[in-house]
Amino acid sequence: MSRASFAEFHCSLSRALDVMGDWWSPLVLRDVYLGIDTFDELVRDLGVSRPLLKDRLDRLVDGDVLERVVYSTRPQRFRYALTASGRELVSVLIALTQWGDRWHAPDGPPIVLRHDCGEILEVSVTCRACGGAVRPDETSAQPGPGGRAAPGTLVVAERLARIS
Amino acid sequence: MSRASFAEFHCSLSRALDVMGDWWSPLVLRDVYLGIDTFDELVRDLGVSRPLLKDRLDRLVDGDVLERVVYSTRPQRFRYALTASGRELVSVLIALTQWGDRWHAPDGPPIVLRHDCGEILEVSVTCRACGGAVRPDETSAQPGPGGRAAPGTLVVAERLARIS
Repeated sequence: MSRASFAEFHCSLSRALDVMGDWWSPLVLRDVYLGIDTFDELVRDLGVSRPLLKDRLDRLVDGDVLERVVYSTRPQRFRYALTASGRELVSVLIALTQWGDRWHAPDGPPIVLRHDCGEILEVSVTCRACGGAVRPDETSAQPGPGGRAAPGTLVVAERLARIS
Repeated sequence: MSRASFAEFHCSLSRALDVMGDWWSPLVLRDVYLGIDTFDELVRDLGVSRPLLKDRLDRLVDGDVLERVVYSTRPQRFRYALTASGRELVSVLIALTQWGDRWHAPDGPPIVLRHDCGEILEVSVTCRACGGAVRPDETSAQPGPGGRAAPGTLVVAERLARIS
């Protein structure tokens, strides 16, 4: 199925995945977050080809997750920076990374983060209303205004409509 | 670069991405979380081919994110269920979905979740120590025990070593 289909699914998860594009994009965002933010540094760190990196960067800029910032004018050079949307996405990627730390890092976490509160950062996905950690078993789903029964959400839409 | 490389990067984010496999896997997890948990229902909901779904399900079971649960013995039928690791990953996917709701859902969220605390669920990625929402600008990174300078983290390792 073509990549375009994910953007058309009436599902915010597929759209979020579509903006990310593929597995290289989260790593690009990780690098920019860590301060590796020029084209040449990104090529070197990730070990990817220049055309592939160019494609991913263009995609992330089009998706308003990264922006280009000019830092020298003759010759013109720029670096990449996270947008507001990109910073929020990086917070989610930190949560994903720490999931990887817990379940797939037998040698221990490769990178340890510290929070400005002073402590080693361990993130939790929490409920804004009550502050509790979110467990899937403690949630229920109902159809929202943007939902449709269509490929990618065919049964989802029927199932949610039946129980709401 | 082959998919195998992501699993070899000394980076928990790449390993987490490698377990997920590709974009269909998060959607499979979304569906199992929503109660769409048999092979036939998943094929129908996602609109994918049977071989592709079989491959993704095998991958998720091998990655210990899903498990098969027999629910009838003659003939043997099973459904898929989230493991403890899978439930934690779904919490992260909920955060990713809500990022998609905020930035890429002009018609409004397709699915609305309610938390068992009684309120509509809006998740936040927070610091376990202080409870505050995590903003990338309010964190700093240092090398951890599992880190290595290698493809995927070549510059990252040098950069972190220099500042720690």
